[in-house]
Amino acid sequence: MMAYIYGDNILVVDTGIMFPENDMLGIDYIIPDFRYLIENRDKIRGIIITHGHEDHTGAISHFMDEIDAPIYATALTRGLLEAKLSRSGHLGKVELNTIKAGQTIQVGPFTVEFFHVCHSIPDGVGLGITTPAGLVVHTGDYKFDHTPVDNWPTDYAKLAELSARGVLVLLSDSTNADKPGWTPSERVIDPAFDKVFSGAQGRIIVASFASLISRMQQVANAAIRHGRKLTFVGASMTENVKIARRLGYLNIPDTLMVPVDQALKMKPDQIVLMCTGTQGEPTSIMGRLSTGTNRQFEIMQGDTVILSSHPIPGNEESVHRTINRLFRKGANVIYEPIAQVHVSGHASQEEMKLLLHLVKPRFFIPIHGELRHLHQHKLLAQEVGVPEENIAVIENGQTVEFANGEMRLGERLPGGYIFVDGAGVGDVGLNALREREALAREGLFLVNLFLDKNTGRLIEEPEVLTRGFPYSEDQICDARRRIADAVTRGNGNLQDDIQQMIKSYLYNETKRRPTVFVTLSRS
Amino acid sequence: MMAYIYGDNILVVDTGIMFPENDMLGIDYIIPDFRYLIENRDKIRGIIITHGHEDHTGAISHFMDEIDAPIYATALTRGLLEAKLSRSGHLGKVELNTIKAGQTIQVGPFTVEFFHVCHSIPDGVGLGITTPAGLVVHTGDYKFDHTPVDNWPTDYAKLAELSARGVLVLLSDSTNADKPGWTPSERVIDPAFDKVFSGAQGRIIVASFASLISRMQQVANAAIRHGRKLTFVGASMTENVKIARRLGYLNIPDTLMVPVDQALKMKPDQIVLMCTGTQGEPTSIMGRLSTGTNRQFEIMQGDTVILSSHPIPGNEESVHRTINRLFRKGANVIYEPIAQVHVSGHASQEEMKLLLHLVKPRFFIPIHGELRHLHQHKLLAQEVGVPEENIAVIENGQTVEFANGEMRLGERLPGGYIFVDGAGVGDVGLNALREREALAREGLFLVNLFLDKNTGRLIEEPEVLTRGFPYSEDQICDARRRIADAVTRGNGNLQDDIQQMIKSYLYNETKRRPTVFVTLSRS
Repeated sequence: MMAYIYGDNILVVDTGIMFPENDMLGIDYIIPDFRYLIENRDKIRGIIITHGHEDHTGAISHFMDEIDAPIYATALTRGLLEAKLSRSGHLGKVELNTIKAGQTIQVGPFTVEFFHVCHSIPDGVGLGITTPAGLVVHTGDYKFDHTPVDNWPTDYAKLAELSARGVLVLLSDSTNADKPGWTPSERVIDPAFDKVFSGAQGRIIVASFASLISRMQQVANAAIRHGRKLTFVGASMTENVKIARRLGYLNIPDTLMVPVDQALKMKPDQIVLMCTGTQGEPTSIMGRLSTGTNRQFEIMQGDTVILSSHPIPGNEESVHRTINRLFRKGANVIYEPIAQVHVSGHASQEEMKLLLHLVKPRFFIPIHGELRHLHQHKLLAQEVGVPEENIAVIENGQTVEFANGEMRLGERLPGGYIFVDGAGVGDVGLNALREREALAREGLFLVNLFLDKNTGRLIEEPEVLTRGFPYSEDQICDARRRIADAVTRGNGNLQDDIQQMIKSYLYNETKRRPTVFVTLSRS
Repeated sequence: MMAYIYGDNILVVDTGIMFPENDMLGIDYIIPDFRYLIENRDKIRGIIITHGHEDHTGAISHFMDEIDAPIYATALTRGLLEAKLSRSGHLGKVELNTIKAGQTIQVGPFTVEFFHVCHSIPDGVGLGITTPAGLVVHTGDYKFDHTPVDNWPTDYAKLAELSARGVLVLLSDSTNADKPGWTPSERVIDPAFDKVFSGAQGRIIVASFASLISRMQQVANAAIRHGRKLTFVGASMTENVKIARRLGYLNIPDTLMVPVDQALKMKPDQIVLMCTGTQGEPTSIMGRLSTGTNRQFEIMQGDTVILSSHPIPGNEESVHRTINRLFRKGANVIYEPIAQVHVSGHASQEEMKLLLHLVKPRFFIPIHGELRHLHQHKLLAQEVGVPEENIAVIENGQTVEFANGEMRLGERLPGGYIFVDGAGVGDVGLNALREREALAREGLFLVNLFLDKNTGRLIEEPEVLTRGFPYSEDQICDARRRIADAVTRGNGNLQDDIQQMIKSYLYNETKRRPTVFVTLSRS
């Protein structure tokens, strides 16, 4: 999420989410801390969504809970946003405007020109934003694919035209800033598909992202070339196929598609199934297929499974586990680097350099990516001639101010992570995560003591409950004996003393530090 | 861990550990289930350790707790084993024999010929094992490096000689079976180091694995070339340097090395520090440097940090987080793919094919790697002409029998994971992990009720304790009210009823399912 501010006017670009890291236990997803925008909600003149991926759209419903401003998006992005806003009950209550690459709109003092960019979802746009302080170029996610599946390359001419007008600052995608070379065209996947399709004796099951519309087109084309019928399986994928076909972003003849139940009755070598689950998510179709818990169908000996995706960082283990399980069930699994069945949707180093040369900005702010990517992008910009002092590597919440042709760092606004967990937004903080981590690593040891309120003696054996903490009978007997001794000695704060004593005892015995609770009741 | 069995004779090869996956909460490491070997301990004639890496040596102390048999290893491997056995108090109680590549030993009915293999640690060996059933070739971990740092390439001639005798079965390393091409030589790192060393204005800090002796040699050589002094930091690295220098596997002049405290007083451009922590481990030196919690020294603006390593699968997130933090502290961080500062120690596809052609085995069993790697290795073997029916892709515990020149799958023995957690070996099972996972994802909600034993009424407000489960005051009040109502109604099993009621209430309120405990005490 980015905000452009001029006077009392704010233009918001993108409302994405982040996915939690493996040690963010129990967190569903992360939204940006946009309290500054809530506090300044009256100044927000518009929200532009550059393309339909979750990391640019996913927080839209949370955002529209708080903000009332028109949304601008291309047709496909709008279609995907509508599905999201409809699920959260916002549809009909928010203003949605369809824009097109090539179009210019006015949002408060900002004149926004949209230009087409290639990415791993169709209908992505970059922005040329004319502000009173100068011209800003904001790429969104992009790559320079010369042979994209939809034959619509990134708009070099528009970039050159903006450049000719003099660009104050370029903000561009850094995701692949540590990848040398040029990202291969989506088109390289076709021959890889052809090779796999030619060799497959049985069913072909292709897993990819539900938003990767161009990949669906490529699978459909391969199915036609190899005389197979095609079925999409799973809610998110079928929904997106419906939206993309309705809006003309997917060209799949009706005669190619068959319903799942019919597909499952056909000869294995006549069918392609396409589904989600490339990240090894246990509840996805591919995840369930790998564990034999999918209801509609199962992996059969002779199936060819294509994972047309990369593991998102942090998902490597679960992806690899899924692949291992699919092999165990008799499938032949094709994945990168076995065959080039996926390419990135983001520009690599050589494209980044080309962009910098095309746009020739005075100032440069690398965006999108981790801090290490921003730093590498900065080094690339220096290599192609942007002076170091004209580059700002900034993290969430850091403002940058432009005035009189100068750039300087401004105020630091709240820019942290807001964790979404179940129905809770922002209530789980780092403390709760630390407590979860402690429980997770060492387990729980719970002791209830029942004391006579007059004598202070134990009335019953201490009750011990544990979770995730294995123990021996001997240890429990020993712990009970020590508790009884402590009660008999009975000085100081009994509850704290026993808690401390049990912690030390358990650590000495097991070298583990479970979370220990002691409760006392006197009667 | 592999075992070769003939009659009443067992030869064990390697005693490694596995590292836990991210969702194996709290587990320190994993050892193989070797109960079959414990039950047959009298038959074990010897234990061969092929090289000094943890995944081949790490369980040695657990193994020697149960088994009494001589260990055979090359000098460096023995040195590293001794350090391990000394820490666990086994040294002096176990029989250690030093062997050399080129040597032949007799272990029961097995004639074992050791041949040198290149790997990312010196002094690795593969095995030619002449058994009454035929000749076995067991590679251990290997690569075909033509220009290894120690100038000692893999022994092609010996492989050819074994081949000429007719090899019954080849067992070989599959780790990189999905990597096309040929693994680059360790030597390619030298020019990458030169480039980074030439450009570095300040201190250079190189992180690598403590066992990567050849990398230490390369860093030492680069330090000499660029006129810097060298310091090794951290216990495991300094211990291994000492062992490797003593045994002649590291050639570092005394004049090159300076103690840490002296290094820290020198000009930044005169020093190289080498330490561990390439996997982002929070307690490693690199981990502590990234969070500013290292005692001896801190990252300074202008430091160049080289991560001479790959993230081990599953560690990507913590490695990337560490890199981001180092950048934030002002270091320039060099890591793959920014520069080729690391290469794999395992053969890639073309080397695997060469090995198969060199050895020309009748049967083939891919070893080392996940199931997906074994399957890919099988496909490679088929490509170079091994008939599919002569290849066995097997998992831990599966025996394979050879008799009369035939191969068939035998009995399945216990082959699962034994989790080591603190002092506990094998006591944490899947149930405990599931309980930890539940606590980790959703937290804990604990209610203590104090009832009057005569009237059954609440004497005090229910006491509520939570961990990792955030709640609002309203929710707690509401929960207390519902508990009071339930106590008043008071039929059936009060404890279970209230537990169930609280679970439903919390789920409806928060969409979370914490572990709920209710304890009752009547007085």
